Amino acid sequence: MEAKLGEFDLIWRFFKAGSESMAQTQVNKVLLGIGDDCALLQPEATQSLAVTSDMLVEGRHFFANANPEWLGHKALAVNLSDLAAMGAKPVGFTLALALPNANADWLTQFSQGLFRLAQQWQCPLIGGDTTQGPLTICITALGHVPSSTAIKRSGAKVGDDIWVSGTLGDARLALGALRKEWPLEHSSLETVLPRMHEPEPRIALGMQLRGIASSALDVSDGLLGDLRHILKASQVNAEVLIDQLPTSRTLSEQSESLRRQCTANGGDDYELCFTAPKNKRAEIESLSTTLLPLTRIGSISSASNGTEPLLILRDANGNLLTAAESMRLMKSFDHFKSS
Amino acid sequence: MEAKLGEFDLIWRFFKAGSESMAQTQVNKVLLGIGDDCALLQPEATQSLAVTSDMLVEGRHFFANANPEWLGHKALAVNLSDLAAMGAKPVGFTLALALPNANADWLTQFSQGLFRLAQQWQCPLIGGDTTQGPLTICITALGHVPSSTAIKRSGAKVGDDIWVSGTLGDARLALGALRKEWPLEHSSLETVLPRMHEPEPRIALGMQLRGIASSALDVSDGLLGDLRHILKASQVNAEVLIDQLPTSRTLSEQSESLRRQCTANGGDDYELCFTAPKNKRAEIESLSTTLLPLTRIGSISSASNGTEPLLILRDANGNLLTAAESMRLMKSFDHFKSS
Repeated sequence: MEAKLGEFDLIWRFFKAGSESMAQTQVNKVLLGIGDDCALLQPEATQSLAVTSDMLVEGRHFFANANPEWLGHKALAVNLSDLAAMGAKPVGFTLALALPNANADWLTQFSQGLFRLAQQWQCPLIGGDTTQGPLTICITALGHVPSSTAIKRSGAKVGDDIWVSGTLGDARLALGALRKEWPLEHSSLETVLPRMHEPEPRIALGMQLRGIASSALDVSDGLLGDLRHILKASQVNAEVLIDQLPTSRTLSEQSESLRRQCTANGGDDYELCFTAPKNKRAEIESLSTTLLPLTRIGSISSASNGTEPLLILRDANGNLLTAAESMRLMKSFDHFKSS
Repeated sequence: MEAKLGEFDLIWRFFKAGSESMAQTQVNKVLLGIGDDCALLQPEATQSLAVTSDMLVEGRHFFANANPEWLGHKALAVNLSDLAAMGAKPVGFTLALALPNANADWLTQFSQGLFRLAQQWQCPLIGGDTTQGPLTICITALGHVPSSTAIKRSGAKVGDDIWVSGTLGDARLALGALRKEWPLEHSSLETVLPRMHEPEPRIALGMQLRGIASSALDVSDGLLGDLRHILKASQVNAEVLIDQLPTSRTLSEQSESLRRQCTANGGDDYELCFTAPKNKRAEIESLSTTLLPLTRIGSISSASNGTEPLLILRDANGNLLTAAESMRLMKSFDHFKSS
């Protein structure tokens, strides 16, 4: 409706400058970066193109006073995490950004967080848009994955192991402490805050899991709710050993109740949850040694044959959890169903 | 930060259902649509991939009470228009949508406008995100263009003609009437409103211009300001015959001053402005007969050699416009420069 404000035109040039050196790192793939009607990529015939978009809104996905550097990191990280979950290698991303005003300090910090992560994964900014509006960040990330090796949610088979990378629950532990849902010592909070603010997309792991994992996704909304997406897509049931969910030392020092809650249905972990046949255990344990810890947390127990999948939770002794405890830990996705 | 609201999860399923039949229309290219961590496309080795993102924000790009069907159309149209300007053919798009609340009527109308245009150009929704927040629409569109035939902004050469498709200024005429900047009879407003609300991306023209146009862009911010992007990218100067800018009958009936203002710096037209060598005139005139009217509006006069490009405006008799009149008509991009 309105012609673009010159102010926001300038912001765009700011990002353009930041991206130009980077685009050189993918010079064979990025034929044309920022500054034309579209960016142009040269796909490789042997590769499929993975595409994902996420929108982060102030007050919903981050606090109004969020550190801009963390925000720049996280906005890209959540998209790269989706690429990782498909086994894709990042190629580039677009950024659409609505800002209430043009604050040079904010922009400098935001772009530092953004470009540092982009640089780490050789994933240049190739285009996008800036406009005035309530703070909203929309990133679309593109990646390559060799054709037929993309890791979908629908490939889990009866008998497969269920695995998770890294540790779960620290982001939720930090968020709850900031919201005063539970007390947490300052020194403990300091150790878990980075997991909430600067999640690491598991790109390297995702690429290594091609040909090994039968299904995968990234844990963004809470492990059990997200695992359920795999079960539904694959039409299978599962059992999970709830006390084997990997935790940081800080979380392991909390009460059993809080530990279980944070690991089972805390969001924002951005670890990969994946399934794999039993005969891949040695390969996965090798990755666990060389890349990052991978923990076997359960198994695909049976086919669900089109009915709602069953997710059975067992404790450290292999006993079924009580119905009340299971419901508590599955609350995040029960909420989805009831509303 | 928060797990997704079930409400917004449901919205997403709403779009998924709407997109599934469509994805079949590109079944060879869309390997995996909505419902996994990423969509998967199978690029063709002979094609480059064109990528563009635009974000529309309530109150800035559309009125708060905008008709949702028009909004669905326009949000996709402005992105397809960018593909058109590169000569690309649409392949698919992602949608990230922030909504203050989940209103079924609004969603039904929005998706009708969106999917009707998507269907017209066989461009399925392949992924995205819905969340709660101030009404914001971010679409990323992907297209194919045979390698080396993409039409960039940087290819204009001295001696080229400058052309524009369709007619210019109706969207600005309608906006100004709605804002009471000038009076307009109701019957006249009715004829120009569709140009503001439901712009037609010039996809078919863009594809036909491969190998003919030396440069192109879509007119979104006003002809003279947008043409200036071509001049800068191509390092050339231009002359434009301001009274030859094509208008609708409704706009031609307005005063010379208003007509010039709307055609020269009105935004939201989404016509293509392109340059082409003189020896392509016959081909272009043939397209003008069979596809949509194309009008020669000026020429690339000389090289700018890295200095700010000159854009000289002449009237119907070939006389230079006064400096004051030229400045008035170039106001839109002077504003960009000064702020």
